[in-house]
Amino acid sequence: MPVTMKRLLDPDALRALSRGCAILGAGGGGDAYVTLLQALQATEDFGPVTLVDLDELPDDALIMPCAGIGATTVILEKFENGDEGVRLRDHLQRMTGRPVAALMAIEIGGGNGVLPITWAARIGLPVVDADGIGRSFPEVPQVTMHLAGIPASPAVMTDERGNLALFRTISGDWMERLERAAAVEFGGAASSAEFSLTAAQARRATVRNSVSKAIRIGEALAEAKTSPVDALMAELDAFKLVTGKVLDVERHTTSGFVRGSVVIEGLGEDADRLIRLELQNENLVALERGRVLASVPDLITVLDSETAEAILTETIRYGQRVTLIAFACDPVWRTERGIDVAGPRVFGYDFDYRPVEELASARA
Amino acid sequence: MPVTMKRLLDPDALRALSRGCAILGAGGGGDAYVTLLQALQATEDFGPVTLVDLDELPDDALIMPCAGIGATTVILEKFENGDEGVRLRDHLQRMTGRPVAALMAIEIGGGNGVLPITWAARIGLPVVDADGIGRSFPEVPQVTMHLAGIPASPAVMTDERGNLALFRTISGDWMERLERAAAVEFGGAASSAEFSLTAAQARRATVRNSVSKAIRIGEALAEAKTSPVDALMAELDAFKLVTGKVLDVERHTTSGFVRGSVVIEGLGEDADRLIRLELQNENLVALERGRVLASVPDLITVLDSETAEAILTETIRYGQRVTLIAFACDPVWRTERGIDVAGPRVFGYDFDYRPVEELASARA
Repeated sequence: MPVTMKRLLDPDALRALSRGCAILGAGGGGDAYVTLLQALQATEDFGPVTLVDLDELPDDALIMPCAGIGATTVILEKFENGDEGVRLRDHLQRMTGRPVAALMAIEIGGGNGVLPITWAARIGLPVVDADGIGRSFPEVPQVTMHLAGIPASPAVMTDERGNLALFRTISGDWMERLERAAAVEFGGAASSAEFSLTAAQARRATVRNSVSKAIRIGEALAEAKTSPVDALMAELDAFKLVTGKVLDVERHTTSGFVRGSVVIEGLGEDADRLIRLELQNENLVALERGRVLASVPDLITVLDSETAEAILTETIRYGQRVTLIAFACDPVWRTERGIDVAGPRVFGYDFDYRPVEELASARA
Repeated sequence: MPVTMKRLLDPDALRALSRGCAILGAGGGGDAYVTLLQALQATEDFGPVTLVDLDELPDDALIMPCAGIGATTVILEKFENGDEGVRLRDHLQRMTGRPVAALMAIEIGGGNGVLPITWAARIGLPVVDADGIGRSFPEVPQVTMHLAGIPASPAVMTDERGNLALFRTISGDWMERLERAAAVEFGGAASSAEFSLTAAQARRATVRNSVSKAIRIGEALAEAKTSPVDALMAELDAFKLVTGKVLDVERHTTSGFVRGSVVIEGLGEDADRLIRLELQNENLVALERGRVLASVPDLITVLDSETAEAILTETIRYGQRVTLIAFACDPVWRTERGIDVAGPRVFGYDFDYRPVEELASARA
């Protein structure tokens, strides 16, 4: 039965959600631990949040997708003050003239998968068991709502000081430009809500059951007996790209993104291998001597080799023992339109997307 | 009698207005000739615009101050499409929940002094005989409304494509940051409305009769018989800083402003003098061998020595024969608060403001 039953998210579920979101962030989406602490505090103060399936909401219920926007290096250090969600909700309601019925993570990856819990607790609204990507992507229009033709406008942005920016743009690209510029002015990161939609629209325009999926991934990690990495890979149906240590990290925060690259040197059976990982908030491409091992829109995640916890693009550093894995994105990103919006060429790479399982079997 | 009688602005009045605004721009405010052509076209198509005194409006009439925002070098080449004013008005009304009764130039200087005519003609509203500076200044909070404690929020920005940005900020400085960043994204310039206020507020928070004053300056120029420069200086009660030619221009467009400096070499009785003019959209400071001849908030305007037409910071070039003049700003800018907002230290200069007439008599 695909319908998730209505459930209250208890602290254990939130802890599992946080770990699962970190894995689904593909290195991005922001740190999910600080966001977990915020969610635990908010649900303790205001009561637990209900996770609802889209089928449980009336067709015309308005859903507010929301997220932190900016460079993940900044998000790690620049916290919300807690009021952002209420302010986003109030102004979205004012702009649409309709009440918000539920919140949704714009992206299930990283802290952005957990963030709506805090705001939902404080507002007293449910969170839907869905998101707009099924992972994290760096740019505003890289969401399933955009693929489905739902406009980003009206968008609401706010910061921890109480400033507010509202945008109505002629395209998703213009929304990316204006929101990114505002995020930079706000100090490199801010809070945003865009692509608001009805439950009826969301049923065909989101990645469904992704909150449940993230919780399940976190639970699989928590329950792993011998090898957390193996347990996680089985849960994700993932491919191992390399096991080794971080040899070099080049990272800079610019124009509202963290960008850079990481070199991983193989150890053990992977000795003498050198893998280069390129990133823009998220891990974009894994290369070995110029050969593509995996690329967007598929997910590439760096794991701590011992604990299988995700290591983010902003916290990866020299010497860490890591296992690099890759796994399939939601099928919608493998459509022509999906690849046009989030394939390797969008990020400036001169090669066509090939699914991670194809690349893996070509190597085997 | 200080009250301006209600009058229709005919083409001759608009031509005089355009020339007067250019003089009051202190080098900035954007080119006033293209704006004049737009105003002539709009008033031909939609009928003439009424100039009203603030005393003619009911106390609670909502006034929309409006302007182009961005680098004057960009404004010179990137025209409005004409719909901007209607869009700004519609969204300001939506945000405030009140009808706009009249438009006002945020700044009387340059094209921004003429721009509201075009929009008022297309909307069918009057323009008030007042503005928010009495000249032009580069930054958003450098207006008399800010001095009077009227908030910049809510602000509306739009571009010629139809994109829209609305801001509510905790301070005028935050409004400057967000609007400037949006103007840069829009291509270096855009249209904006902020500091909306009632007629009752405007009576104590604006520079009154400045549209009439600009028209009078333009008429004095048009009627000058022998020396237009002398006629203009008499009209303005201005001081001549130097007569000479432009020896060097250094100018760059960055972060939504044009910045740079100009060197003017004296000719005739001013031979061997070298005057340095520093600018940020407007002329900020005139220096001679490190000695200040005039500075913000007073007005420094470069005139064509033959015609006395204003030469703007974005069009000044090597070899032009020019007369540099300076004259007093509105008294509100000479108050402690005025100097705190638009004095030389605000622009990074390490000297205190001294009125232009004091500096002139010290030289004499």
